[in-house]
Formats: sequence, C-alpha cells, structure tokens
Amino acid sequence: MEYRIEKDTLGEVKVPADKIWGAQTERSRNNFKIGSPASMPIEIIYGFAYLKKAAAYTNCELGVLSEEKRDLIAQVCDEILEGKHDDQFPLVIWQTGSGTQSNMNVNEVIANRAHIIAGKKLGEGEKTLQPNDDVNKSQSSNDTFPTGMHIAAYKKIMEVTLPGIIKLRNTLKKKSDDFREVVKIGRTHLMDATPLTLGQEFSGYVSQLDHGIKAVEHTLDHLSELALGGTAVGTGLNTPKGYDKLVADYIAKFTEQPFKTAENKFEALAAHDAIVESHGALKQLAVSLNKIANDIRLLASGPRSGIGEITIPANEPGSSIMPGKVNPTQCEALTMVCAQVIGNDMAIAVGGMQGQYELNVFKPVMAANLLHSAQLVGDACVSFEEHCAAGIEPNHSRIKTMLDNSLMLVTALNTKIGYYKAAEIANTAHENGTTLKEEAVNLGYVTEDEFDEWVNPKDMVGEL
Amino acid sequence: MEYRIEKDTLGEVKVPADKIWGAQTERSRNNFKIGSPASMPIEIIYGFAYLKKAAAYTNCELGVLSEEKRDLIAQVCDEILEGKHDDQFPLVIWQTGSGTQSNMNVNEVIANRAHIIAGKKLGEGEKTLQPNDDVNKSQSSNDTFPTGMHIAAYKKIMEVTLPGIIKLRNTLKKKSDDFREVVKIGRTHLMDATPLTLGQEFSGYVSQLDHGIKAVEHTLDHLSELALGGTAVGTGLNTPKGYDKLVADYIAKFTEQPFKTAENKFEALAAHDAIVESHGALKQLAVSLNKIANDIRLLASGPRSGIGEITIPANEPGSSIMPGKVNPTQCEALTMVCAQVIGNDMAIAVGGMQGQYELNVFKPVMAANLLHSAQLVGDACVSFEEHCAAGIEPNHSRIKTMLDNSLMLVTALNTKIGYYKAAEIANTAHENGTTLKEEAVNLGYVTEDEFDEWVNPKDMVGEL
Amino acid sequence: MEYRIEKDTLGEVKVPADKIWGAQTERSRNNFKIGSPASMPIEIIYGFAYLKKAAAYTNCELGVLSEEKRDLIAQVCDEILEGKHDDQFPLVIWQTGSGTQSNMNVNEVIANRAHIIAGKKLGEGEKTLQPNDDVNKSQSSNDTFPTGMHIAAYKKIMEVTLPGIIKLRNTLKKKSDDFREVVKIGRTHLMDATPLTLGQEFSGYVSQLDHGIKAVEHTLDHLSELALGGTAVGTGLNTPKGYDKLVADYIAKFTEQPFKTAENKFEALAAHDAIVESHGALKQLAVSLNKIANDIRLLASGPRSGIGEITIPANEPGSSIMPGKVNPTQCEALTMVCAQVIGNDMAIAVGGMQGQYELNVFKPVMAANLLHSAQLVGDACVSFEEHCAAGIEPNHSRIKTMLDNSLMLVTALNTKIGYYKAAEIANTAHENGTTLKEEAVNLGYVTEDEFDEWVNPKDMVGEL
Amino acid sequence: MEYRIEKDTLGEVKVPADKIWGAQTERSRNNFKIGSPASMPIEIIYGFAYLKKAAAYTNCELGVLSEEKRDLIAQVCDEILEGKHDDQFPLVIWQTGSGTQSNMNVNEVIANRAHIIAGKKLGEGEKTLQPNDDVNKSQSSNDTFPTGMHIAAYKKIMEVTLPGIIKLRNTLKKKSDDFREVVKIGRTHLMDATPLTLGQEFSGYVSQLDHGIKAVEHTLDHLSELALGGTAVGTGLNTPKGYDKLVADYIAKFTEQPFKTAENKFEALAAHDAIVESHGALKQLAVSLNKIANDIRLLASGPRSGIGEITIPANEPGSSIMPGKVNPTQCEALTMVCAQVIGNDMAIAVGGMQGQYELNVFKPVMAANLLHSAQLVGDACVSFEEHCAAGIEPNHSRIKTMLDNSLMLVTALNTKIGYYKAAEIANTAHENGTTLKEEAVNLGYVTEDEFDEWVNPKDMVGEL
Repeated sequence: MEYRIEKDTLGEVKVPADKIWGAQTERSRNNFKIGSPASMPIEIIYGFAYLKKAAAYTNCELGVLSEEKRDLIAQVCDEILEGKHDDQFPLVIWQTGSGTQSNMNVNEVIANRAHIIAGKKLGEGEKTLQPNDDVNKSQSSNDTFPTGMHIAAYKKIMEVTLPGIIKLRNTLKKKSDDFREVVKIGRTHLMDATPLTLGQEFSGYVSQLDHGIKAVEHTLDHLSELALGGTAVGTGLNTPKGYDKLVADYIAKFTEQPFKTAENKFEALAAHDAIVESHGALKQLAVSLNKIANDIRLLASGPRSGIGEITIPANEPGSSIMPGKVNPTQCEALTMVCAQVIGNDMAIAVGGMQGQYELNVFKPVMAANLLHSAQLVGDACVSFEEHCAAGIEPNHSRIKTMLDNSLMLVTALNTKIGYYKAAEIANTAHENGTTLKEEAVNLGYVTEDEFDEWVNPKDMVGEL
Repeated sequence: MEYRIEKDTLGEVKVPADKIWGAQTERSRNNFKIGSPASMPIEIIYGFAYLKKAAAYTNCELGVLSEEKRDLIAQVCDEILEGKHDDQFPLVIWQTGSGTQSNMNVNEVIANRAHIIAGKKLGEGEKTLQPNDDVNKSQSSNDTFPTGMHIAAYKKIMEVTLPGIIKLRNTLKKKSDDFREVVKIGRTHLMDATPLTLGQEFSGYVSQLDHGIKAVEHTLDHLSELALGGTAVGTGLNTPKGYDKLVADYIAKFTEQPFKTAENKFEALAAHDAIVESHGALKQLAVSLNKIANDIRLLASGPRSGIGEITIPANEPGSSIMPGKVNPTQCEALTMVCAQVIGNDMAIAVGGMQGQYELNVFKPVMAANLLHSAQLVGDACVSFEEHCAAGIEPNHSRIKTMLDNSLMLVTALNTKIGYYKAAEIANTAHENGTTLKEEAVNLGYVTEDEFDEWVNPKDMVGEL
Repeated sequence: MEYRIEKDTLGEVKVPADKIWGAQTERSRNNFKIGSPASMPIEIIYGFAYLKKAAAYTNCELGVLSEEKRDLIAQVCDEILEGKHDDQFPLVIWQTGSGTQSNMNVNEVIANRAHIIAGKKLGEGEKTLQPNDDVNKSQSSNDTFPTGMHIAAYKKIMEVTLPGIIKLRNTLKKKSDDFREVVKIGRTHLMDATPLTLGQEFSGYVSQLDHGIKAVEHTLDHLSELALGGTAVGTGLNTPKGYDKLVADYIAKFTEQPFKTAENKFEALAAHDAIVESHGALKQLAVSLNKIANDIRLLASGPRSGIGEITIPANEPGSSIMPGKVNPTQCEALTMVCAQVIGNDMAIAVGGMQGQYELNVFKPVMAANLLHSAQLVGDACVSFEEHCAAGIEPNHSRIKTMLDNSLMLVTALNTKIGYYKAAEIANTAHENGTTLKEEAVNLGYVTEDEFDEWVNPKDMVGEL
Repeated sequence: MEYRIEKDTLGEVKVPADKIWGAQTERSRNNFKIGSPASMPIEIIYGFAYLKKAAAYTNCELGVLSEEKRDLIAQVCDEILEGKHDDQFPLVIWQTGSGTQSNMNVNEVIANRAHIIAGKKLGEGEKTLQPNDDVNKSQSSNDTFPTGMHIAAYKKIMEVTLPGIIKLRNTLKKKSDDFREVVKIGRTHLMDATPLTLGQEFSGYVSQLDHGIKAVEHTLDHLSELALGGTAVGTGLNTPKGYDKLVADYIAKFTEQPFKTAENKFEALAAHDAIVESHGALKQLAVSLNKIANDIRLLASGPRSGIGEITIPANEPGSSIMPGKVNPTQCEALTMVCAQVIGNDMAIAVGGMQGQYELNVFKPVMAANLLHSAQLVGDACVSFEEHCAAGIEPNHSRIKTMLDNSLMLVTALNTKIGYYKAAEIANTAHENGTTLKEEAVNLGYVTEDEFDEWVNPKDMVGEL
C-alpha cells in the first residue's frame, strides 16, 4: 500500500496515500481497534460539518479568519454534507471520550481537501489551512463534539423519530375512529372483564403516543443548547467577543433548527444531561410501544387457538418448518427495538453520571446510543405502521362470541342488586358452565326482562 | 390470639380481633408473605384516603350516596390522613398488580371504622357501610390505585423532592457567587487544563440542577392526570354522569394540588407512562447529582496527598481504624442514592412495558419505586446541603500552587504563535521539569514581557 | 427526652438515655436523615455479630485480647443474634459508603452492653471495653463491612433464596410429570404451532430453574471469600500473624457456612464483584421466573374469553367492582418481584463500577439491594408455589378443543409431501374455515387414511 | 436494476439479479427497513453455516438426505465460512424475533449457490436443492437460530473475549510483580489512608480479572448447549431418531468447541437464559474494568496538578486547543465500552424475560448484544493492554513525596498508644500543618525513637 507522511505535535505518521485524513486520524485508527471500524456515527460528522462552517463564518465576521479561508472551509463542509467524503471518517466510537480524534479527523479532512481544492498536492507545499489554527479556530474538541452531537441528535429526532412516531400515532388514531363502535370484551389481569369498544382500546395507544411525543418535545429545548464557544473548559478562551451567540445563529441558519448557545458552557462540556433527558423520553416511548405491540400480537394471536379478535397483515411465510404459519413479525421487530432502547438508556445513564471536573469523557458512547435509539424508534414505527398497524382489521365474529360468553357483564348489576349478589350469579354460572342470565333468574335476583334491560354490553362502554 | 369472623365473596376469614381490617386484607396478608410486612407505602394509603373522601363527596353530590354515608367516609379518611390508622394497613407491595387488595384494605378499614364510629361493634349488626357498594362506589381498584399513586407521587415530588433539590441548588448558587473570582486550574480528562474560576465550576452544577428541576416540572402535567372515573376498564361503567371531572376537582381541592381527570382513561389504567416519565426526570437528576458529588469529593480529596482545592465539613470520625481521618461521607450517601435511583428507573421501565390489554398489573412496584426515589433524592439533597455543600470553602493556597504549576496556561499563546509552537513549549517544559516561561523564552518564541502579558490566568477565564 | 453524654474523637454527643449506642451512631443518625430510619438491613448487623465474636476469639487465641474481654464481646454478639437488640441499630443505608458508622454502631452497642453486663452504669466509670481498641481490634470498617455483607448475603441465599427456588422447582417438576401425556397445541410467536404435551411445556420451566440454581451456586465460592484481615487498605495492618485465616475459620464455625479468607484482600475492599456476580445470578432467575409466571397467567387466562388451558387456584376475590372475578395474583406478585430484581441489578452494577483506589464506597447500597432481591426471590417463589403452582390443573376439554382445531398439525406432512404442498393445505383451510383433512383430501395430496395415519398429534410430540 | 423472480408460499418476489438470495430474504429486506442494513451479525451467519453443514451430514448419516445433496450443502457452507458470501446476507437484527428470515436467507443462499455449483442458472430448471425441504431438513428456525447464536457467542468468547481479558490480566500481573516493593500512600474514600505497595494495588486488579474470567468460564457450559433437534416447539418433530446428539457432535467437530445437545429442548427454544447468564459475566467484567481503568487515570492524573503517581504512554496529542496535552484515552475508550456493556446487559434482560409459551422472540436482539459486548470487551482489553497498561511506570519521586506527607501513618500507633491518642496526634498535625512526628513527641505520647521505630511505611504493608 502506498503512503504519504503526515505530521502532528508527536511526530510523523504514515497515512494511506488514497486517504485525505491526517496524522491524528491515522494514530487513532491504529490505537483504537475496538469493534467495527468507522463506528462513529456519520450524523456526528455531519454535525461537525455544520459547526465548522458556522465557526468559519463567525470567525470571519468577527475578523479572525480571512474570507478566502472561510470559503474554503465552507466548501469542504458542504461536500461533506453532500456525503462525498463519508469514507474519510474511519474512526470508532471507542476512542478518547472527548471525541478529540473525530474533531481532528474533521479538521484534517477539511484542511487536506482544501489543499486539493486550492490546486495543490497533499504532502507538498505549506498547508493551505492549518487543522488546529484555522479549521479549529475558536474551538476545542470539548465544545465542538457536544455541539456536533446535539446537532446530530436534534436533527435525528426531528427528521426520523418524531415523524415515525406521529405516522404510527395517526394510523392508530384512524383505527381507533374506525373501530369506534366495535364492542368487545375487556380484559384485566389477562382475565375477562367488562366490555369496551375496540376503538376505545386503541384510543389508549394513541394517548400513550401523544404523551410520549409531548415528552420528547419537552426535551428539545435542552438539546437545542450548544456548547460551542466554551472551548477547552467552558470559559471561551481564545474566542473573539460575541462568538458563542453568533456561531449558534449560523448553525441555526444552516440546519434550519432553533439552536441557541448554551447559557452555561461549563455544564455543556462537563455534563450531558440533555442527552440523558432526550433519551429518557425515547425510553418512555419504548415502554409505550412495547405495550402497544404486545397487545396487538395478543389480540391477533391464533388463528384458531388464541384470542384472534383482530387480524394483521401476513407479510411473509412465518415458519421454515410449519407450512402456512403467519406471525406478528412487525410486533417482534418493534419490541426488540424497545429492548434495545431500554438498554441504551442505561448505557447513557452510566456514561452521563461519570463526568469529572470540567469534562464528561463519555461523549461518543452517549451520542451513539442516542442516535441509535432515535433511528431505531423512528424506523420501527414506520415499519410497524406500514406493514402492520395500517392493515389491522377486527374479526367481528370472534369478537362477538367472546363478548357474549363473558361472565363479567354481571358487573352491570352491581348498582341494581349489589356486589355480593352479582358475585353469586357469576360464580354460579362459572361453576355450572351456564349463562349469567340463567343463573340470575334461577337465583331469583332479577327477572328475564330486567336482565335484558340492565345487562347490555353496548350500554356498558360509556359515551363514545 | 383472639379473632373475629369477616366475610367476602369467597367465604369466611378469621381476622385478629384488635384489627379493623376485613376479610380481603387478611387473605392478602396470608397469601403474600413476600419481603417485609406492610411494605406498601403509606403515602399510597393516604392517596386513597383523599380519593375515597372525594368519591364520597362526588357520589353524594351526584345523588348516589347519602350525606350520612358521605360524612362517615370522610371522617374516617380524615383520621387516616392524620396518621391514626397507620397500623391498619399491613399489606405488601408484592400483592396483586392492580393493588386491588390495598384498595379493599382501605375500603374495609373505612367501613369497619365507620361501624365503630356509628356506635356499633365489629362483627355485630348489619354493616353501617358496605366496603364494595358504599366505600368503593363508582370506583374500581383499576382506577383508584393509579389515582392513589399519582396523588402520592405528585405530593411527594412537590413536598419532598423539589424542595430538597432547590435547597441544594440555592446553596450551590451562593457558593458559585462566593467563589466567583477564585481562579483555579481546570481539568479535562482528569488532566491539567486551562484555568477557570471555582465559581464557574460550581455554576455548572447549578445549571445541571436548574435543567433537572425543569425536567421534573415538565413531567408534572402528565402526573396530575387522574384515572378515577374509568372504573374497571376505562369506560366509567357504574359511575354517574359527570363523576370523573367532579371527583378530580374534589381531589384537587382536598390535596391543594392541580389534579385533573385524565383525558383518556384507557391509557390511565393500562399504562403508567406518567410514572415512567416522572421517574425519568429523577434519574436525570441522579445522573447530575452523581457528577456533582463526585466532583466535590475529588476536589476535597487529601488532605495532603490528593487534590485538596476545597474543604468540606468534618461531621464524624471517618475511620474505625485510622485515627483522625475525615471522609466525604455526604458525597457517598448521595451517590449511593443515585445508584439506587438509576436502578429504580429500570424496575419502573420493566414494569411499565408489560401492561396487557386494559390493565397494567405492575402498579405497586412502579409506584413504590417512584416514591422511594422521590423521597431519597429529596432527603439526600437536604442532607448533602446541610452537612456538606453549605460548608464548602476554597483552599486558596492549594489552588494557587496548582494553578501556577500548570503547563496548560500555554494555550493562551495559540492565537499569538500558533498551536504547534505552543505545544513545543509545553512539551519541553514537561520533559525538563521547568516552567513554561523559561522554555518559551529559551525557544525564542516570546520575550519575557510578552509571556507575562499574554499568559495571565485571570485573563483566561472570560468575563465573570 | 433524657440524654446521656457519649464521646468520640470529635467531642461530646447527647444520646437518648434509653439507648445503648454511642456517639458515632448518634452523629450518623442526625447527619443522614435520608429515607426511612433503620433501613440498614438487620441481616448485616447479624453478620457483624458473627464477625465481632469471631474476631474476639481470634484476637484472644493470638494473644492480643484477654479471655474476659473475649467472653464479654461474645456474649453480647450472641444476644444480638438472638434479636434482643434489634432496636439499637437505627442507622440507614444512606450513610458513609464504607459502612463505618454501622461498624461503629455495633462496636458501641457491644461496648456499652458489656459495660452493663459487667454491672456498671452507662456513662459512669471507665468503659469496660473500648469500641475501637477492643471490639474493633484487628479490624477496620473497610474489612468488617464487606465481611458482614458477605455473611449476610451468603446466609440469605442459602436459607431463603435457594430453598424457595428449589421448592418451586420441585413442584413444577411434579406438575411436569403429572402432565406428561396431556397433548396440547404448541404456540410460537403467540401463534398456533405444532403440538407438545403440557408436561413438556412445564419441563422447560424446570430446566430454566435448574440452570438458574446452578448459576447461583457458581457464585457462592466468590461470595464465601471474606475481607476480614485486610483492615484499612488490604495490607492487614495492626493484625496479628495468622489472623485472617483463623478469623475466617471461626466465622465458618459460628455460621456453619464454608467461609474462607479472601486470597486477595485488596480486591476484597476495593471491589465488590462478588456481590455483582451473585446478584447477576438472581437477575437471571428473575428473567426465568418472569417467563414462567407470564406463561402461566397466559395459559390460565379466561375463564371464557382467553386461553384457559389450565386452571389456577382462586385465592381471593379479584376485583372490587367486577363480582366473581379471579385473577392470577401470584403471577403478578412474582413478576413485580422480577421487575424489582432487574432494577436492583442495575443499582448494584452502578455501585460496583465506581470503586476508587483502595475502597469501594457503595457497600451499603450494594449489600442492601442483594439482600432485598435474595429475600424477595425466595419469598415470592414460596408464595407462588404454595398459592399457585401447587394447584395448577389442566383443563382437558379446552386443551382438546384447541388442539383439534390447529392448522399446524399439517407440519407432519412435510416429510411426506413437502413443505410447499403442506402450506397450500394449511392456507386453504385457513381461508375456507375448514379442516386440514378436508382440504388435504380435496387438493388430492393425501387420502383420508393417509391423513389419519400421518397426522396424529400424539405422534408429533416425540418420546415422552 | 435487473431482477429475477423468486417464489415462496406467499407468491412471487423480484430479487436483484446479481444476488443469490431468494424470495423470503427479499421480503424481509423490504419489510424491515429499521436501522442500518445488514446489521444481523455475520458471526451468526457463520454459526448457521456450521450447523447447516452439520445437519446435512447428520441427515445423510441417518438416511434422510443423499450424499450428493450433503456435499453440495457442505461446499456452500465452507464457502460462507471463508467469507465468500458476506454480501449475500442483507438482513437486519430488527426482523422477526425468531430469526426465521435469517435462517431462510441462509437456506436460500445455500440452495441457489448449490444450483450454480451444479452448473445451472438461477431461476432456470428445477431447484437443485429445496431451501425448506433439503437445506432446512430436520430443522426449524426455532432451533437453528438459537443454535447459530450459541455457536457464534461461544466462539466469540473463546476467541476474542477471554484472550483479550487474559492478555490484560497477565500484563497487570507483571506490573504487580514489578511494582512489588514500591511503597505508596493508600487512599480510601479518596482520602489519604495507610500505605500499601503499588504492586499490591495492582494485585487487586489482577484478582478482579481472575474472578471475572472464572465467572465467564462458569457460564460456558450452559452456552455450549444447542437447541438443534428441537425443531418447531422442542419436540423434535420431523427429525430422524438420534439426530439431536449426532448433529451436536458434528457441530463440535467442525467448530472444535465442546458443544453438546441441550438436555431440555423446550427451554432451549423458549428461553435464552444462557445468553443472559454469559452476558451477566461480561457485565461483571465491565464493572471490574471500569474500576481498574478509572483508578489508572486517577493515579496518572496531572501531570502537575493531579495525583501523578504513575505515568502512562502518550499515544496521541490530547487536545485540539491545548498544546502538549496528553490524556488517558485508552482508559476512556475502555470505560465507554463498560458503559455500553452495562446497557447491553439490560437490553438482554428485557428480551430474555419476555419469552412466551414455546418461543422467545427476542433472539436477534439478545444475540447481537451479547456478540457486541463480547467483541468490545475483548478488543478494548487488548487495546488497553497494548497502548496503556504495558507502558505504566511508577513516578517514584511523586510517590515518595505523597507517602511521606501522609497523616494516616499514625495508624501504626493504635496498637501502641490506642486509637484516641493517635487521633489526637493526627488532628493536631492536620490543624497545625505539621508532621506527625513533631506532634507525637510534643504531645508526649511517644519519643522520637519510638516514633521512628513504630511508624515506618515499609513495615505497614504486610508481607509482600
């Protein structure tokens, strides 16, 4: 393999000739062979591209960077955002906990790519841009990495997570409306209970997601705070006056999201509670989605020896050995995602709690887990919506059979004859394998007409 | 031991003569000998007392309960809230997951106590109040237990958790102000970094708590939603018209907290995402508090062979074997609480995700963990504030020594001579065990005067 | 309230006159008002009683403590173990993370009680025993607390957890044998699948518990290692030669459990991976038990509109509003315990990972969580066995109906006519609501006789 | 793009012409667009290759598959194991929870590749092998997927995890030996304590890893149990007699690992406690490694204003803004891995607890998390060993300064003058900023000579 020589403050490093990264990237690549290569999420690299461009504009506007350098930096950042350099970011999550090496990876790629754009050859001539002094001007890894991860996370939540959840929520709402009058047996403790409508059942799912969406939205304000301008320890050393606010404005402009400078930069470097907070809302959604998906597979279970009150789409053969089997596979994918998100929540908490002094050095693992969850939740909701929820239909005959059998319709008699006599009716019917009506009349507590008037499932589901 | 006979729909049960609970309480006591007796939090019982009284008022106002019965119920509820019957609630968390047995415990105690108040003897004469038909009128365990747990949790957070956090936050804010100009070395990656002030360092803690308080407050709206009125499956079967809103109003009035009826009762029974959500905010605070307490013990470490930049109060002998030792014990208590809260968060998630159909049957474990965390966080913040934070003082001589030694002051030269030359100065001084100034001048990059002008810790901490 | 004056190295403290604890206990009581009073598990106090007695015997045998003092210490320890002084240990979990204050609580109670036994009055005369120099001789909190917690945890696991699990395991094994030939439909993905016997289904539960028991037993060796003899930092400073092995022998003798001295005392103070390890096995059991309990409530669901293949005992009225309802309450209690144990596992991990230098200061929270889980798992298994598992019976008619309906019996045809044709039969029967046999013959793939010969559920369950 | 038509029991599907997978793979690819493509770990695919080959040999030996078909299957499996078809497995973790689609992906690739090997063209002529009837003969997804995941996990632990941990353990042992006599100050509660040697400190780390290795090894027996032979629900339907044991023997032979058939196949399909158990041991190691890495960065902190008792290698420039800064980056990577592993443990628990009836449908997420952790722990240990642990050196001058300053050397006087007088000496020296010796003599408790004889750090560290 061919190499060229790159340098940093520790000396010379051989870099593959066909790569435009520099010495520090190469060192990191060799020093951290942990897990899959290039595991650092590309969204964080894109977050860096936004902020490097914003920093260049700010530095220029505040008089500490030339327009020429600004434009070079901005041009490469735009290329990165177009996905043209994805293969130039080979580093892993499991590097230094400040993400310094990924920051330098971006700095080096921008500087070297600018060198090429400027018509020069890598390794020849004075560098057109200095990675530290120009590209990283008025910045530190300590404020850029959290900025990059906030940009990445905020955008992911806005562009993937929330749209996915909302799409699923809307379909469940439509189903709730469609099933508005489908009276069915309720179940509590998995046991037969008083009736409700299938629409009411689904309205609970909608309400869960509505609360979950609200919970996610509540966390966005904290996540919109950017560390940039804090530099090494939060004091903003080596930044021009007014830099922090202006650079946040540029980032907001370039990303079209309402980012703002963090009021307290010391927190913004030393703690990542905003990541903990946003992921907490995703965990809440995982809890909700697990319940919903689990209900749906229980309701759809069968086809002959389960509950079978609803049908869900048959998307693929379900078994490699049992012919004709169809399984609730979307429910399974979704609940597996929920398990992962709940695990990721713990990884983030463990990272978040261990900041020390002026820096939390669990940045990459926290950011990667948040992005992972945000993507999975969004994608899984869309998949579940398209391939399962949208196709849910009631199995009316099954619903009716089960409803009519239920002993818990007796509850309607509580207010007429009292809980104890009603219990006697239910218990007797259960023991004898008879109907409520038979036993109610036999026991002499009601007449047939009273029973028919008082015990009517449709009257037991409240106002629709 | 003496007994009397109590009955329920399954038959007769012997109850200790000196207790006023009934058959179902006694059954549960015998059927669930798991862990310590009476582990069901008393706050939930008090929550029940509020809601039973509110239900009695509502039932009366809506014409389904007599004033006499209303007043009897209310009187016993008030007695319970005064703590007069704490020993009448012997049940454990580890019972039925709907909390039915604790609901019946309350119903039975109210009915029996009312019987006594009415001048009768337990076990004699017709019951003055029926536990199910009167005390539990227009209610089900399925809507009362979640109502009771929301009341308990909301009050705990308002009365214990938030005041505790705010007290600590205010003291840390005062310290941050007091230490505003104490310039000290910063540390990132645990390594020497550029300076900041001790006040700035503490301002990060304040900002973490401010965000945490906000996060808790964001969850209160969901927690203020009450399930009451949903009865068995959310439909409100057997409740009079208008009951749900009115009963929530009474609860709000009696508790003096802004409770309201849940818009969707199906969710309110089948899922407890509000508990997940509120505890998520407590977990975030645990993450924050762990960082803060950990920093403080690191800063106070020593007294001679640690960091020692601050001193904390010596509240007790620290060691049973090492004479004269003083330890950061409040930090330890607080971080142990954080570990517990993080664990509790997982217990709640595991419970929350497993609701099925119309009911989540992990209610007691979820409620107990939230109440446990809410109490611990509040108490631990108060303890930490009183016995540690309030007494923190800077150790000025130590701070000065460490600041003056630091090689990272060289960062101030970046904008003057560039990152690479600055690195050379720092590396040379590190290798030679010399000062930055010596090497900066030796290497010919700056004059002595320039060094003194440019490298001044006080100028490196930004605007205060 | 009346007081007497007690002293420690920080000065005088007022202690309630009716209590025999000393100055340091009182300081801790006042300094750590966090959560419920006296939350430090009494089992740990008992662990201390064993080790204090063992230390006294060892110190005496090695010539550094008089026989008189040894006997006094031993006498009080025996009283403590008889439960006579339970109310003398008022401290909480949330104290110093080394448990120093509980160690001193024990030292003080022993010293003061010995003073009384010696016929003197508290607060008068020279102390008969010095808490630090005599009772704590050759000890430090740093080695006593982990010793006390290992003793407590080991005993709890041997005396409560394992017996509970084994009791349940044996009952499930008996049920598995009893149900050996009850052929029923299998379910995978909650969907109808090929048949198995109810005994086979239960054998899986037995196998899970067998593996879980083995997993717990694997951890006991690590847990049997005692830190005692390490004193302050693991070096054994201030202990007589041979002390560590001898004191472990005495503890083994007094507790009748195979305790031994830890080979490496530095680990034994600075890390509590043994707690992490043992609790990991409890967490595994929680995972197993959750599956088992969940299956049982699914199988028992109904009575009319669920699965209903088994019946479980009706131990109590299930609902405060729905008369005659019976719920799987033991399953609910058990699965709530599982949720708690899974949460506790995380609390322990978070504590275990944060040891620093020579000491882990999350001892009390780790020990308390292990003890909590060990008690809950043991108790819940016993409760579940007695009130649920022992009473499980098959519902033969329901089982037969569901088996006969199943379309997945078609799988038996795979080896005769191939997967594709078998699938066609199943799909056609599903669409037409017909039987497999009808469609198999209609499609011309098999004759009636072949079908009857080849598709026989009893032949599909393998050797029994 | 060019396509060809593939079929399954649901009908026709268009598959990219350059891919050799079949209809079910393509359906899954389209139905589960969740997260990154091809996220199903390739190690599981390799596990499948081993088991498909073993099944072919077993089927042939037991007379249900021709030698020709056996050899074709075996040939493709060997190609897969050589990595020649890695790009033919595009499916994701987030598919059906039984992994059916990945099983079919393997079946389809084997069948189609065999078709090509047999000289035919895809889509033309009768299939040389039937994916279900031949490749999947005597198998179900329900027993193959858990078999594949056990093979993958076992091999990963044996080949990556354990070697990595042992490598690190051995280096730490060597360091412990090298530093055997380096007496230094101990620290408990982060505060100065009695001395020990640096070798002793490191011996604790070695002991932690030794226990951790043992814990991992304890779990291997459970993990070596293979589900294969259980087919759809554990009964072994459609397998020839003797199949399960023989196929396990072949797998053991091909993988050179001691695999065996699971005694209870019902457990092996319905629960994955073996995954929970093995990962529990990895979590324990994460707890240990976090402590070790954290200690090392604390000990190495500075270089001038921290502890600085050891030095670690400087592998890369530590800061993009602070010139000359070197950070404990390997500690950071390792502790981030620990955070991830602790999170993964929870994901696995959540999946493991939710099995239902005859199948746990969280197989892919459980397997993926175990493999992820096993790889990360192994890799991170190697990285930490090579780039950090191997280069650790004591900083003797710093160690000596800190040791000599310590007030806790006073502990040696306990057995001479008692704890109280010793405390008085330490407290006085602390208040006056003087030495122990000065105050000990001043207070008249010991003579200078006695002090020098009794208070000697070297004598305080026990036998080495």
